[in-house]
Amino acid sequence: MSPATFAAVDVIRTKRDRGELSKAQIDWVIDAYTRGEVAEEQMSALAMAVLLNGMTRTEISHWTTAMIDSGSRLDFTDLPRPSVDKHSTGGVGDKITLPLAPLVAACGAAVPQLSGRGLGHTGGTLDKLESIPGWRASLELPQIREVLTDVGAVICAATGDLAPADKKLYALRDVTGTVEAVPLIASSIMSKKIAEGTSALVLDVKTGSGAFMKDLALSEELARAMVDLGTDAGVKTVAVVTDMSTPLGRTAGNALEVRESVEVLAGGGPADVVELTLVLAREMLAAVGLDAVDPADALADGRAMDAWRRMIAAQGGDPDAELPRAQHTHDVLAEADGVLGEVDALAVGYAAWRLGAGRSRREEAVQAGAGVELHAVRGDTVRRGQRLMTLHTDTPERFDWALESLVGGYAVVDPAEAPAPPPLVHGRISN
Amino acid sequence: MSPATFAAVDVIRTKRDRGELSKAQIDWVIDAYTRGEVAEEQMSALAMAVLLNGMTRTEISHWTTAMIDSGSRLDFTDLPRPSVDKHSTGGVGDKITLPLAPLVAACGAAVPQLSGRGLGHTGGTLDKLESIPGWRASLELPQIREVLTDVGAVICAATGDLAPADKKLYALRDVTGTVEAVPLIASSIMSKKIAEGTSALVLDVKTGSGAFMKDLALSEELARAMVDLGTDAGVKTVAVVTDMSTPLGRTAGNALEVRESVEVLAGGGPADVVELTLVLAREMLAAVGLDAVDPADALADGRAMDAWRRMIAAQGGDPDAELPRAQHTHDVLAEADGVLGEVDALAVGYAAWRLGAGRSRREEAVQAGAGVELHAVRGDTVRRGQRLMTLHTDTPERFDWALESLVGGYAVVDPAEAPAPPPLVHGRISN
Repeated sequence: MSPATFAAVDVIRTKRDRGELSKAQIDWVIDAYTRGEVAEEQMSALAMAVLLNGMTRTEISHWTTAMIDSGSRLDFTDLPRPSVDKHSTGGVGDKITLPLAPLVAACGAAVPQLSGRGLGHTGGTLDKLESIPGWRASLELPQIREVLTDVGAVICAATGDLAPADKKLYALRDVTGTVEAVPLIASSIMSKKIAEGTSALVLDVKTGSGAFMKDLALSEELARAMVDLGTDAGVKTVAVVTDMSTPLGRTAGNALEVRESVEVLAGGGPADVVELTLVLAREMLAAVGLDAVDPADALADGRAMDAWRRMIAAQGGDPDAELPRAQHTHDVLAEADGVLGEVDALAVGYAAWRLGAGRSRREEAVQAGAGVELHAVRGDTVRRGQRLMTLHTDTPERFDWALESLVGGYAVVDPAEAPAPPPLVHGRISN
Repeated sequence: MSPATFAAVDVIRTKRDRGELSKAQIDWVIDAYTRGEVAEEQMSALAMAVLLNGMTRTEISHWTTAMIDSGSRLDFTDLPRPSVDKHSTGGVGDKITLPLAPLVAACGAAVPQLSGRGLGHTGGTLDKLESIPGWRASLELPQIREVLTDVGAVICAATGDLAPADKKLYALRDVTGTVEAVPLIASSIMSKKIAEGTSALVLDVKTGSGAFMKDLALSEELARAMVDLGTDAGVKTVAVVTDMSTPLGRTAGNALEVRESVEVLAGGGPADVVELTLVLAREMLAAVGLDAVDPADALADGRAMDAWRRMIAAQGGDPDAELPRAQHTHDVLAEADGVLGEVDALAVGYAAWRLGAGRSRREEAVQAGAGVELHAVRGDTVRRGQRLMTLHTDTPERFDWALESLVGGYAVVDPAEAPAPPPLVHGRISN
């Protein structure tokens, strides 16, 4: 059967006039765009029409399938363990993947965690792990399968052939004001995750100032769209909507977050990081029928740490090596006695980014040691002159720029005026 | 004062989120787009956002001014006669400019009619005049001024430097499904007309199947937007919304329409062409304070014909030369006795186009003699076997293709079922 062909302008008009795109139209437009037959200016007009007029569940499902079909699919069904993946929409201090993947592996599942690098104010998982001396992000598929069979968890760079149409479309959306379309965000994330071939997927959809989606209703809409897409593609998918109004844990920055993750694996670490790691681990294990295992035990008895050490070593990393530290630090002190009423995720994320922990362009390098370390979190009683945070960087001329982004981002208030912190988990969405 | 600069993506987001673009944003984005700094895919996303979210009167006014400022402006205020221009949004058989310009000139005004070529199913004024042996469309500005001073009317090609941003944007809108945005249509037309520098402007906004705007409410919205733009720019502007559900007159095609126009100038011709010519002539004369002159007199006593002959001769044309005729004709006969209930403008326009009167791409040539000649119009009593129309072309293999477009486009009905024809003039809009 030869595929149908269309005029790009008719496909655009259909969505512009609030019509529903057919599967044939969607298959054609994604394929023709990937081949360069549909021009960038045509796809951007279509993306804006999708952003403003929306897509039905059926359209999003066809769109996602077409993105997947632009590249190859992996298949992990022949592994001796059931495979399950986790995806976070990104937040400040969100290092959960680091303790979570070895923890879930230690409980009997296979976790093929194909990740990306950071862009903007949220850190990238690969950037964080690359602060470990010797660790390499790139693995070939046979190595990925070997580590998954042996250790049960692998965190590595996604291969270039997963949903290449998404890569091209994302770059276009970035410069045309069409990133913030829920159908396009959902299909972008899910096309890559479904192409990875895991049997189950747990989504951590962030909401709040430091998240991609600041608004709870929109975060829930995105979560619902992604759960539907996973379900339609035969992947057991659950979403947890979690808070990103303040940083997760007490660190934002590459080596700083690895250090905190190792603390969690050692049975310590900040309570919110431990809690979210366990919430997501339980969802992942339940999704592949391993409900009987309690991940808290695997965290307490060192099995998770053991899996971590083997996972890092399998990619050339030295789990015992000292992590890099930035050459310069600057302390931010409390200006009054009181209670820390706010520590805004976006402000801290921008500060860490400006200190060198993140990049503005894909080709930029990041500093392993740069970032923000929090000595107090929301709700803590503080005294005038006490250290609230420490900024880390190799380039001290960036301190002023980082401090600028913190203005208004934290506040010491009268205890009576301290707002109640939002819950860590806002909700759970499944089919 | 150095102009403000913006990020293109922020300008797009403003309109995407239903905000109002500032004058500085609009000036920047049009200028940067003309220079190639704002990419085609960014402008197409913005155009789609404008189409779906609209623009305020202030925004459209700034947008139009920015388009004008991308090129040069003409100025006819020093001519010995007041200058007035007419623009039609285009229709099938719309040859009104041909008798109208010399008629208004004969009544004392200067009519600098800078025109374009046809694209699609509506004919172009220059294409029609080029069927006159010897006539040349291109004039330099000094010649234009000379003919305007001497004859009072000139119909010629617009100089390339009028609103060049519009030319670039129109080509983009054509391939991205963003043509049908009232603010962009209005600013596209008015930027060129205001740049032409006439003191008054009469707009003939067509409505119905053969028009660009099929819907009366949208046609009125477009008319209102253009009248506001002209007024804001200091040009006395009036719009007349006229019917385009059936062809104007009895011919659609280049030489065919010139012949009909000469009949009107000779005091004959179809009643609707004469009526619309006089309606628009009275509006143009009133707009420049020449209300006392009755154009019907100038049509009846040969002054308009005299101006026509001098205008054609001034551009190398021979007003006495025989006009080209197509080599082949095909008659369409009535299949029953009754009343001609419908003659659809779009069907006839497509037929004329397919016979060779129009072009599909800018670089195509048109046939001077091709087109459709109507022997009966809506409401006429007809007998089975009587000629309803004659198709003309130099390429007889096109007859079948042209006949296809006429299927369903005309109907002989029972006299009791004949619909009442719509009025020729639907309304008038001014400030």
